[in-house]
Amino acid sequence: MKIYDWPTGPYPARVRIALAEKNLQSQVQFVTVDLWKGEHKTPEFLAKNYSGTLPVLELDDGTLLAECTAITEYLDALDDAPLLTGRTAREKGMIHMMSKRAELELLDAVSVYFHHATPGLGPDVELYQNPEWGLRQRDKAVRGMRYFDGILRKQPFVAGEFFSMADITVIGGLIFAGLVTLPVPDECDALQAWYARMQERPSVKNRVTMSTPAPASA
Amino acid sequence: MKIYDWPTGPYPARVRIALAEKNLQSQVQFVTVDLWKGEHKTPEFLAKNYSGTLPVLELDDGTLLAECTAITEYLDALDDAPLLTGRTAREKGMIHMMSKRAELELLDAVSVYFHHATPGLGPDVELYQNPEWGLRQRDKAVRGMRYFDGILRKQPFVAGEFFSMADITVIGGLIFAGLVTLPVPDECDALQAWYARMQERPSVKNRVTMSTPAPASA
Repeated sequence: MKIYDWPTGPYPARVRIALAEKNLQSQVQFVTVDLWKGEHKTPEFLAKNYSGTLPVLELDDGTLLAECTAITEYLDALDDAPLLTGRTAREKGMIHMMSKRAELELLDAVSVYFHHATPGLGPDVELYQNPEWGLRQRDKAVRGMRYFDGILRKQPFVAGEFFSMADITVIGGLIFAGLVTLPVPDECDALQAWYARMQERPSVKNRVTMSTPAPASA
Repeated sequence: MKIYDWPTGPYPARVRIALAEKNLQSQVQFVTVDLWKGEHKTPEFLAKNYSGTLPVLELDDGTLLAECTAITEYLDALDDAPLLTGRTAREKGMIHMMSKRAELELLDAVSVYFHHATPGLGPDVELYQNPEWGLRQRDKAVRGMRYFDGILRKQPFVAGEFFSMADITVIGGLIFAGLVTLPVPDECDALQAWYARMQERPSVKNRVTMSTPAPASA
């Protein structure tokens, strides 16, 4: 399998963490797509992913899977031991809801702020910006942090009693918030304590250095 | 189970179609939340769903599930015969990708257009509008229609060879596009032919009238 990504990107981080949690790192070859040069917006890359986003997983038969949730579903179903996306109906529903909520209310909101109300990836890549919309999304993301803080006061992980795709999505949100210097509010100590715990997980700690050399035949 | 929804809403339609495809209609009691009165933005409803969107599924134990994908995952996993979200890893990945893409590039784009560049639900509900952003999303949705037209030239259903959650999401997008009078371009005949076929499915055709009387004890 190949993963097209950018090693320090917050969305790529989600799939890198999922790969490590499933112990699948050695089965993947990483291909760097330079976000800062806008390589994810070229016609060649758009043919791989219509939405022009990273990461994309390419299977050995050429099948292309974009969207972190979809890639995580794929990786989690490769064995018969789902770890990240839920085993029972209730777990699946709860994990998908909390992961989607973490996108809507935190990660995607920070991303819109970055691309619309800061210089983002620079003028050659950010061809249209809507700063007012970006600033609204920044404020939404801070409200999202308070929401997840409230959740993590009541339970150890974002979707309940165990680590899941929903935690990975909130981690992606806080990685992105760190990159754009949007700090977690001081009073969100449950969210901060959870994030400190998450950063001790090997899958999270070692995600940027995760890479495998291309095989000699490639 | 209870479903909080608005019978003609495009997002509620997704769950109503999923319920009918799984033959679960009789197990659900519908509770109407009046979008036009902004009942989905009241503190009482926000306590059920932080994001203030419909539909929401309430399980008999009080568990609340929002987000159409999450509710569909739940419903599809109630028996051991997944019908809408995929059986193999590849199917799960492909269905989740195409459903997410249908949200990003079509359904959610039409929704933002409606809420930001038309009167939407009226001035009492639409407290902030960004018309420029709304119009960009309208154009994105029309491009999305062309993209899905291209997909449906090559295969009978949105995610491949069988009906899935991804078809339901595109159906939701075209229902919403119809409500805001955003027609499918004439040249998108594969998308139009697929949509005509979809509207013959009982789950799609009968979705609005689907409802069960509240039990006498409620």
